[in-house]
Parts: sequence; structure tokens; C-alpha cells
Amino acid sequence: MIQAQNEELLERAQKVVPNGMYGHLSVKMQSPRTPQYYKRAKGAYLWDYDDQQYIDYLCAFGPNLFGYAHEEIDAAYIEQLREIDTATGPSARMVELAEGYAEQVTHNDWTMFCKNGTDATTMALMTARAHRGKRKILLATGAYHGATKWCTPMPEGTLPEDRAHHIYYEYNNAESLRAAVEEAGDDLAGIFATPFKHEVIFPQLLPDEEYARAARQLCDEKDALLILDDVRAGFRVDRDCSWQKLGIQPDLSSWGKTLANGHALSCLMGSDRAREAAGKIFVTGSFWFGAAAMAAGLKTLELIKSTDYIERTVMLGDRLRDGLNQVSANTGVEIDQTGPSQMPLIMINDDEGNRNMPGCVAFCDALLDHGVLFHPFHNMFITPAMSEADIDRTVEACDEVAKQFHSLTMLEFSL
Amino acid sequence: MIQAQNEELLERAQKVVPNGMYGHLSVKMQSPRTPQYYKRAKGAYLWDYDDQQYIDYLCAFGPNLFGYAHEEIDAAYIEQLREIDTATGPSARMVELAEGYAEQVTHNDWTMFCKNGTDATTMALMTARAHRGKRKILLATGAYHGATKWCTPMPEGTLPEDRAHHIYYEYNNAESLRAAVEEAGDDLAGIFATPFKHEVIFPQLLPDEEYARAARQLCDEKDALLILDDVRAGFRVDRDCSWQKLGIQPDLSSWGKTLANGHALSCLMGSDRAREAAGKIFVTGSFWFGAAAMAAGLKTLELIKSTDYIERTVMLGDRLRDGLNQVSANTGVEIDQTGPSQMPLIMINDDEGNRNMPGCVAFCDALLDHGVLFHPFHNMFITPAMSEADIDRTVEACDEVAKQFHSLTMLEFSL
Repeated sequence: MIQAQNEELLERAQKVVPNGMYGHLSVKMQSPRTPQYYKRAKGAYLWDYDDQQYIDYLCAFGPNLFGYAHEEIDAAYIEQLREIDTATGPSARMVELAEGYAEQVTHNDWTMFCKNGTDATTMALMTARAHRGKRKILLATGAYHGATKWCTPMPEGTLPEDRAHHIYYEYNNAESLRAAVEEAGDDLAGIFATPFKHEVIFPQLLPDEEYARAARQLCDEKDALLILDDVRAGFRVDRDCSWQKLGIQPDLSSWGKTLANGHALSCLMGSDRAREAAGKIFVTGSFWFGAAAMAAGLKTLELIKSTDYIERTVMLGDRLRDGLNQVSANTGVEIDQTGPSQMPLIMINDDEGNRNMPGCVAFCDALLDHGVLFHPFHNMFITPAMSEADIDRTVEACDEVAKQFHSLTMLEFSL
Repeated sequence: MIQAQNEELLERAQKVVPNGMYGHLSVKMQSPRTPQYYKRAKGAYLWDYDDQQYIDYLCAFGPNLFGYAHEEIDAAYIEQLREIDTATGPSARMVELAEGYAEQVTHNDWTMFCKNGTDATTMALMTARAHRGKRKILLATGAYHGATKWCTPMPEGTLPEDRAHHIYYEYNNAESLRAAVEEAGDDLAGIFATPFKHEVIFPQLLPDEEYARAARQLCDEKDALLILDDVRAGFRVDRDCSWQKLGIQPDLSSWGKTLANGHALSCLMGSDRAREAAGKIFVTGSFWFGAAAMAAGLKTLELIKSTDYIERTVMLGDRLRDGLNQVSANTGVEIDQTGPSQMPLIMINDDEGNRNMPGCVAFCDALLDHGVLFHPFHNMFITPAMSEADIDRTVEACDEVAKQFHSLTMLEFSL
């Protein structure tokens, strides 16, 4: 694997970007040879600067819903760009897209657009506090709700006060949630929940119905707002809010990633119960009302409604899951697969069922030579742009790597 | 002035967006007939849905640096979009743009890209705290540094803890700044400053050199970081950081708005002194590394370096200022003009020199009939896409409105 161009870019970046790269796209937490830069993206594939091609299971960590450089979606973006984009007011696209979401998402009576997933979770938190002037926010321990002062998973640069009046509970544990509500007393503003447990490294867990029902009921009892953070899973597990199948409607839901297939767009959706509070907070951004991303959002919504993309990603995800189970059975390498088929977390466990992190890193590193891009400890994403042949080739690559697994050099992160 | 289409959109929006609109683009704080929606933008002009054309002095509140729908910049965006945009890693455009800023901006040794101006100011605050683990942040009273939990100008949905360890000082007052530094004691993390005083309603003030030098010196003495918030003024008052002409280099500067001429891009720039701290904070966003906005940023930077856009906007701004002074002299209507010529705040004062807010609103409202879009209390922006004829037409329109000023119905906001 030649990486001359990637190395050259890394050296240049080291001079002009702190540590050469930062945030979730930094490959310092991936296998050592993972390319940091890509020069082309199309459908399910990426090409690095040394002209290696990869089937990309990271999908930009979520945004790539229908395939990279999607012709219809990008055409809608470009057509709108020629008319009006960021300007002194929004265009009609904003109204049309908010109407589209009101029709598509059961709990949605209104939408506020923004640019980052973190904007949407922050607006949810502020709206919950504005609702009745109460302060306590309940969050599941370890849950990721973005990366700014109040929610970044790393403490550097933050203060304890940034998380004032946060109370933590255990995901999927109704008793733990009730105890947290008890602790909040008369000061409960809202309860945050991800639609399923999708933290890094830990096995992904689908939501427990009792827990989800308790969250809804407790918010009703306490006049607090239930916030579903659908930034990562939204429109991947359902064409509606991700708790729709459980019959649980949140008051607020935060969305991002998939909304415009990679164009920068996120939003807070809410029900009428939360409308007045949402109307009181002052939040905004220079580019939040750009019409081009909204035009791409409208086209993406059309595809969400009119194609079998969820069924196809579930089918492809199941094909991958079945194939890897077979690889595991063939080779004795324990491949642990959790979460929805279309958002799998795939990790190597040791014989006692614990995470084999150096093994995960080594496994991903070896897969690069087969043109397969896996993440060692973050959930991945299936796109309908993948073909059955892509999945089969991935399973074959995993089989070859698994066969040699015990002769691979185990790898630490190259931090 | 026909507004049937605008009204219809407003009615539809009222159902699916809290209050129909929110944030700085809401026209509730402008004159009652200001259109909320625009369907086309080109150069210096906007068209509303009722086909009225306006010379737009709001310039999207800053992003419109070289004119709307700029052909070269948008072509660079589209060309990059076809190759790769938001993906599993950044493209070489990120490295090239960070190198470009390191060359262009004197204090810049590194750049971290993001999407909102607020992201950049938040990253600056976190970096200042990560620098030496100190907590106190000094801010000028009333200065706008974005609209999220810790900085939004409205308190709804926020807690006092969101502004823990903030200390406020008076802009341009070195004594007030020294007193705030004294109050911070051994806990001073950083000092925020806007390059000039550009709050709404109040007269804009250019920076006092003694104040700026004191800010630099105090940060040096206390091992704290000086943060210049150049989100609104960056690349409008200088081709470098906005305090370059004063010879004052900040440690951190936040940028947004103009960087890619309306495409969503912002960044934190920093000097080597702040590099280690910046490398410690964990901040990120789903779309922060999209290559298309960076390609547009590279083209914008090329135009910043190669054209006379600043000199031209100063010339056009002076022409407007001189014209309005003449209008004021002719008509006796006191038109108060403050700030840099290319970022004027233009307001109507009463005979005692106080803001005549109902007069400002009435003045802007009457200008709409002449196809001129002014803001009643926010600074405005000149774009080089304006022509001398546009400025002259604006002055004529202001002259006509000023002549009838005392017969106009004074207007309150339509909140």
C-alpha cells in the first residue's frame, strides 16, 4: 500500500492545523495506515491521494445516506445555488422543507434549521429549559450529544459549570431513569435519549420499551420535554422518528447528518407542546438559512419517501452480518456485531468476550490492503449505493484477514 | 408595493416554524413591510417573491463579500462538489486553505475549520481555558460573540452557570479592562475583543490604540490568550486580521461570514503560542470538513489577494456617507453614520442626538418603495458588486424619504 501522497499532505497539515487534524475525522484513533485524506468520493467508494479505492463503511460518519456525489441531490443543490443560497432572508425552500418534515415525522409540528448536529442538541436543551424555566437535564451516561462546551466527551477547555444541572442515568434502565427524575425534583426540564445505545466500543443496544415508555410518562407527569437525539440514526432506522416503531413520540428531536446527503444541514423538530418555548430562545447562525442545502434536503426527503433505501440497507447489512458470522464460525475469530443491521458496530472480542482493541485495530489495518474501510470501534453505516458484490467482497476480505488473524501484529493506536 | 407571495409564505411558515421565523434573519425587528423571503440573489441585488428588486445593504448580514451568486467562487464550489465534499476524511483543500491563511494572516500559524461563527468563538473560549487551565474570560459589555448557550444576547433557555467566570469590561476603556484583569487575579484565561465596537443601535466605535495595546500587554503579563472576534469584520476592514493596522497581533482570531462568500465556512485561527491548547480540545461537526466550501474559500482568498475589493468598498461607502451627509444637511433629518465606511451603521437621531427608533423604522420602511434595503439598527455592509450608480440611486432615495420624513407615520417594530 503506497501512501506517499497521504504522507506528504499529513506533513504539510502538521504545520498549519493543530496535530495535523482534529475531531472525529482524525485517523489518530484508527488503524495506523488509514488514509487521512481523500480526493474522490462516488457512491459507496472513496479514493485516497495514492489512488487506492475503498468500499467506505464509515459513510462520512453518517451523512452519506444515498451514496456520495448523488447526481439528483447535487443537481438540486446546484440549481438552487444559481438562484439564491445564503442571503438576507431565507427562500421558500425553508417553508417547503419544514412542511415536508411536518408531513413525514409524526411528532413534528415545527422545525428550526441549523448547521451542526450539536446546534440541534443545544437548541433542544435550551428549549427544554425555556419551556417552564426549570433547569435539570437528564442524560444517559456516556451518550454522545455533540462536541461543544456542554457536551464534548473530552473535558479539556470546559468547566464543571458547563454541565451544571445535568443528571445522568443508565440507558435502557427505567429504574435508573426514575431515580434521576426523583433527584431532579420540581426542577426537571427535559430528558435526553438517543434512539438506541450507540456509543463507541460498547455493544450497541436497541431501546428497551419499558425504558422508552417510562421516559415519555415521566416527562408528561413532570411537564418536562422528552428529547430524542436522532442526529446519528435519523432516517436510517425509520422514515419517521426512530422511536416511531415503539409508538413513543418525543416533544423534541434533533437531526443532522443524513438530512441533505452530506450537504450541511441539521435541525430541531418539535411538537406543538414545545412550540412556545422554542419560539423564545435566541439562536442563529450566518449560514443556517442557505437555500441550496435545503433544496438538497427536499430532494433527499423525496428519495426517503419514494425509494426502498431502508429495506435495501437492512438487506445489505444482514448479508454482511450473516457473512461475518460465517467468517467467525470458519476461523474462530470472535467478531462481535451489534446494533441495527444498517448501522453495525463490528469489533473483535477475545476468547472471554472482552474487546480485543489491538486486534480490532490490526483487523481494520489489514482490511485496508483489500480496499475495505472499517472503523475499529465506532459504529458504521450501510448505504444503498453499495452492491451485493461489494458486501460479498467485504466478507471475503474479512475471511482472508480472519484466517491470518493470529499471525497479525496486534496494533495500538498511533496517537 | 405588492406582497401577496411574501404574505402567503409567511402564513405557511407560521404553521411549521416557531413564530414563522427566528434568529437574525427574522424581519420582526425590521420595518413592517420588509420581505421575509427572497427568491433570487445576484451581485448587489435581491428579488422578493413579489418580483420587487432591492439593492441589498444587509449582504446576508455579512457573508456577501464579493456579490451574490459569484460565478468564479460558485464554479470552484461546484467543481469540488463533483469530486468530493463531506466524506470520511477531509480533502487536500483543507491543507491548502490552512496554508493560505497562514500566509495571509500575520498572527496565523494554524487554522481549525468549523461551520458557524459561534463555533469559532466557542473554540476560542475553550482553547483559552485549555491553555493554562485557568477559567476567567473577559468580554466587553454588550459585545456579540454568537448565539448559543454561553453567548446568546437573550437569556431564555440559558442559566447563569452558562456564563460562569465571565467578567465584563467597557470596550475601548483600558482602565476598565485593567480592573477586570485585576478581578480575574491568577485565573485569567483570555480576553475577547471585537475589532471595533459593532453592537446594534449604539454608535460604532473604531478601536482605541491604548485599549488594544493594553489588551495585548495584559495577556502577555498574565499568560492569557488575546482573542480577536473577527467573525463580522474579518477580510472586510483588512486583508489581514482587523487589528493589523494597529500592529496588535491576537493569539486567536475567530472568522466566519466572508470566508467563502456565503458558502458555510468558519474557522479559528491561532498562533503557535496557542497551538498546544487548541490541540487538546475536542470539538467537531458532521460537515466541518466538507471540501466544496473550502474550495470556495480558496477562490475567495484568491480574490481577496488579487482584487481592489476593500479599496472599492471604502470608496463606495464614502460615496454613500458623503451623499447622506448632504441629505442630512439638505433636509435637517439627522442621519447618524458610524463605523468603517464599508460597514456603516446608519440611524436617524432626534434633535437631541438620541436614537429616533420609530423614525429609523419608518425611514427603512419608506426606502423599500425605492428598492433599497436598509436595516433600522444593525450595521450594514457594502459589496464591490455595487456600482456607483447604485450608491447614487440610494442617496436619491434617501433624499426623497428624508424630504417627507416629518410627514411619515413613525413606526414601531411589528413584534
